[in-house]
Amino acid sequence: MDADVVCDLLAQRLWTQPGASLLKTRLYLVLRQAILDGGIPTGIKLPPSRMLAEALMLGRNTVVRAYDQLLVEGYLETRVGDGTYVVESLAVPGRKPCSSAARLQGSVELLSVRGRRIAGMKTSSAVQHGAFMPGIPDTEHFPFATWRRLLSKYIRREQSHLLNYGVGGFGPLRAELADYLRATRLIQCDPRQVMIFNGTHQAIDLCARLLCDNGDRVWMEEPGYWGARTVLDAAGLNTVPIALDEKGMAPTAADWAHPPKLVFLSPSSQYPTGITLSLERRLELLANARTRGAWLIEDDYDNELRYHNRPVASMFGLDGAERVIYMGTFSKVMYPGLRLAYIVVPPALVDAFGAGNAEMYREGRLTDQAALAEFIAEGHLAAHLKRMRSIYRERRDTLREILDTRLGGALTASGGETGLHLLYYFNHPVVDTRVAEASIARGVVIRPLSIYYIDKARARQGMNLGYACVPVPKIAPAADVLCQVIERQSVAGGRSPELAGICAVHDDPG
Amino acid sequence: MDADVVCDLLAQRLWTQPGASLLKTRLYLVLRQAILDGGIPTGIKLPPSRMLAEALMLGRNTVVRAYDQLLVEGYLETRVGDGTYVVESLAVPGRKPCSSAARLQGSVELLSVRGRRIAGMKTSSAVQHGAFMPGIPDTEHFPFATWRRLLSKYIRREQSHLLNYGVGGFGPLRAELADYLRATRLIQCDPRQVMIFNGTHQAIDLCARLLCDNGDRVWMEEPGYWGARTVLDAAGLNTVPIALDEKGMAPTAADWAHPPKLVFLSPSSQYPTGITLSLERRLELLANARTRGAWLIEDDYDNELRYHNRPVASMFGLDGAERVIYMGTFSKVMYPGLRLAYIVVPPALVDAFGAGNAEMYREGRLTDQAALAEFIAEGHLAAHLKRMRSIYRERRDTLREILDTRLGGALTASGGETGLHLLYYFNHPVVDTRVAEASIARGVVIRPLSIYYIDKARARQGMNLGYACVPVPKIAPAADVLCQVIERQSVAGGRSPELAGICAVHDDPG
Repeated sequence: MDADVVCDLLAQRLWTQPGASLLKTRLYLVLRQAILDGGIPTGIKLPPSRMLAEALMLGRNTVVRAYDQLLVEGYLETRVGDGTYVVESLAVPGRKPCSSAARLQGSVELLSVRGRRIAGMKTSSAVQHGAFMPGIPDTEHFPFATWRRLLSKYIRREQSHLLNYGVGGFGPLRAELADYLRATRLIQCDPRQVMIFNGTHQAIDLCARLLCDNGDRVWMEEPGYWGARTVLDAAGLNTVPIALDEKGMAPTAADWAHPPKLVFLSPSSQYPTGITLSLERRLELLANARTRGAWLIEDDYDNELRYHNRPVASMFGLDGAERVIYMGTFSKVMYPGLRLAYIVVPPALVDAFGAGNAEMYREGRLTDQAALAEFIAEGHLAAHLKRMRSIYRERRDTLREILDTRLGGALTASGGETGLHLLYYFNHPVVDTRVAEASIARGVVIRPLSIYYIDKARARQGMNLGYACVPVPKIAPAADVLCQVIERQSVAGGRSPELAGICAVHDDPG
Repeated sequence: MDADVVCDLLAQRLWTQPGASLLKTRLYLVLRQAILDGGIPTGIKLPPSRMLAEALMLGRNTVVRAYDQLLVEGYLETRVGDGTYVVESLAVPGRKPCSSAARLQGSVELLSVRGRRIAGMKTSSAVQHGAFMPGIPDTEHFPFATWRRLLSKYIRREQSHLLNYGVGGFGPLRAELADYLRATRLIQCDPRQVMIFNGTHQAIDLCARLLCDNGDRVWMEEPGYWGARTVLDAAGLNTVPIALDEKGMAPTAADWAHPPKLVFLSPSSQYPTGITLSLERRLELLANARTRGAWLIEDDYDNELRYHNRPVASMFGLDGAERVIYMGTFSKVMYPGLRLAYIVVPPALVDAFGAGNAEMYREGRLTDQAALAEFIAEGHLAAHLKRMRSIYRERRDTLREILDTRLGGALTASGGETGLHLLYYFNHPVVDTRVAEASIARGVVIRPLSIYYIDKARARQGMNLGYACVPVPKIAPAADVLCQVIERQSVAGGRSPELAGICAVHDDPG
């Protein structure tokens, strides 16, 4: 291949190939690609830079820079007094140039076995807001100005030490949380027992890795929080569903015959049913955990948002700091994107969790933690919570009243005294996933209850409705759509004509 | 047990037990504890609230509140027209009260097998700054005012949607990164291929979980980045060290006889040796990865901090987006506590990594991502990098000159053309961990080279010195301490008296 042929080949590729690169990098890319795909064979001499520049109508510097880069990278070599060659010994793959508009299609077979499981658990929708997305707090009433002031306060040269990895978290935040938990959750702990994470999933993950091995059994409430299930499953644990009764998680003697290494539960307000775990069950679980060497993760995700009774004390406090890991989050009381959560571990686990947190995740975000500590200390969090409790209660009451009025006999409510959502069971045979699909198609997001079950065969049919991120005036129109969908589904399903009579049907002109 | 005895018992415990709780919660805690430890037996009648209040010299409301709370929680029950009883059927554990000043001693036997491994890998020190901590950038010269302005800009009611979970990350940041990588790393990718993480450890973790199963083999450079090893090991992978030669990672035919599922490597500038992987090796690794179905993680942790030659193109670009996952971080170019990193995945993995990221970690932090996108788009990152390259080069040259002058023949340098650290091998038999211990004891942190090896028996002795976070005037005094330590260690070791002559010894009066 002589110099003219090389010039022609490069000219053709340079001006015909798609791609928005600058000319200087484009020549480099085209020449490199021609070497890699065999268009320009190894061992041949390249045209002198002046000649190639003229042929390509480029400045000579552009060609020199491309040659230089490929020299540095080992594609080309110079022979003294001779010229520039493509390295003879290059084992080029000879493949075709790859289109930059590559297809973005998934290929499940590329994944590992657990990778397929994780990717297959995708349940979170692209929509993360609006009627009636569960678990999403209001973000309109957040005290933006205060938070902005506090966040900015710690981004300063005088506090540049806060920009570092920050092993162990921000001490004052841990102390603030220890005080807060003492006052609100009757938890007695040393600030060193408080560990900060980028969200509860990270905290659950560390518990699973430090306390359990592959194949260990973990009990979960059925129905329960599926996000935890994904994380525990991905950590190699064997998730075992334990049925609920009206007193909460109700393991049977048969369940206890195969005791778990870990129990994941939400005793204050079970997710999604809102059931409070009875004292009797708490004591039983703790006693068994002690004798059988099991650990408990107490997920206290929305305890701060209790609308009536005062909160029930934590299991952590009841346990005397032995087998319980208490977990809280700022996703509901501040906002989800903040990604700050915490756990309180028994004293005997402080060292291990400190090491694990540092080694696995490297921590950091001390400026955010400092702002949060001050947000709590100055009383802004308490004030925000007080305000939001009243706003949420009004939204809940509005939604509940509409559903009670229009679908009264068709639904049975569960919980609703706390948190951001209302759970309803369908009294008549309706397939909840179909209700959800039809409702989402009309712009109203609901979560079918059955997806919260591990064992789908045991699933009760119902729906989980988040009202917290829906202003009162928007609740009625969305609830109207939902009522229509439920009525039509029950008719379409052909199983429950009586439901049609109960629902107050409004014809949808669309 | 009659009412007077109950009053006495509670009075004694209330006023003698340690604990800083408010009286209203303290009475609740003491009464609950007395029930739980059997001090007050189940089934007995409690004194009327007025009587107990007088006995304890408390307001009656305080007693009523404590009773009410314990009623709600199921410890007590009221019998109509009679009084308040401790629930007869309570299965109380009868344990001793737990001291709130609990010991914080670690108990390794409480952990799982993998938990012990993770906790045992603790190598990060509490000190994360100063001479000569490797991997730590300067945080004094960061453009605080600009960053503060951008961070604040997105904490606003009008942008409250940014406070949500933010599945998929902030689109404009992904687009900005795709452009940046096209210009600087010759990576052609769609913004959807770019995924945002809370640091590289999280990204490595997701790769391990989605692409590998327990027991799968992962190759790592030897020596290599230990943090990745912890994460990969914790994900159940079998980390196999592959020796380096002057061209980088050098797998032998015997290594290829047991091909890996994943290869973790830093081809631009191998950590910690600074070796650039040769083109020949790159092509060989890629060809083998394709035929054997292995994945590569290209850790490009400090490519932006190259002081002389222009950067070598990425392996991702060379591969044509098939088997390579490219990884970058803002820990070095911005600051470590920011906890933002990214990967670019092949098109075929976009769906799976999107689902995995959402399900495993829930993402979020869109306000930070928006600020970062604008920081890049407005040119602040490029300007900061330009400035820091010049500052870091001066610091590197200062340290290198001192060590060359005083310890010239005792040390052999490796790399140093990029990044934040200098690596030196000891030419004489010195135990590097002892040098590190002695140096740290005198306030100068260094990392012994041997800790970067999986197979300690093959470890070369040396030291990794971070200069980036040390202002020039502080380099000479710290280097002086280090030189003294090395000289003394070599004498103390009794193995290398000739080293004493090479080091210019200054007596330490301390």
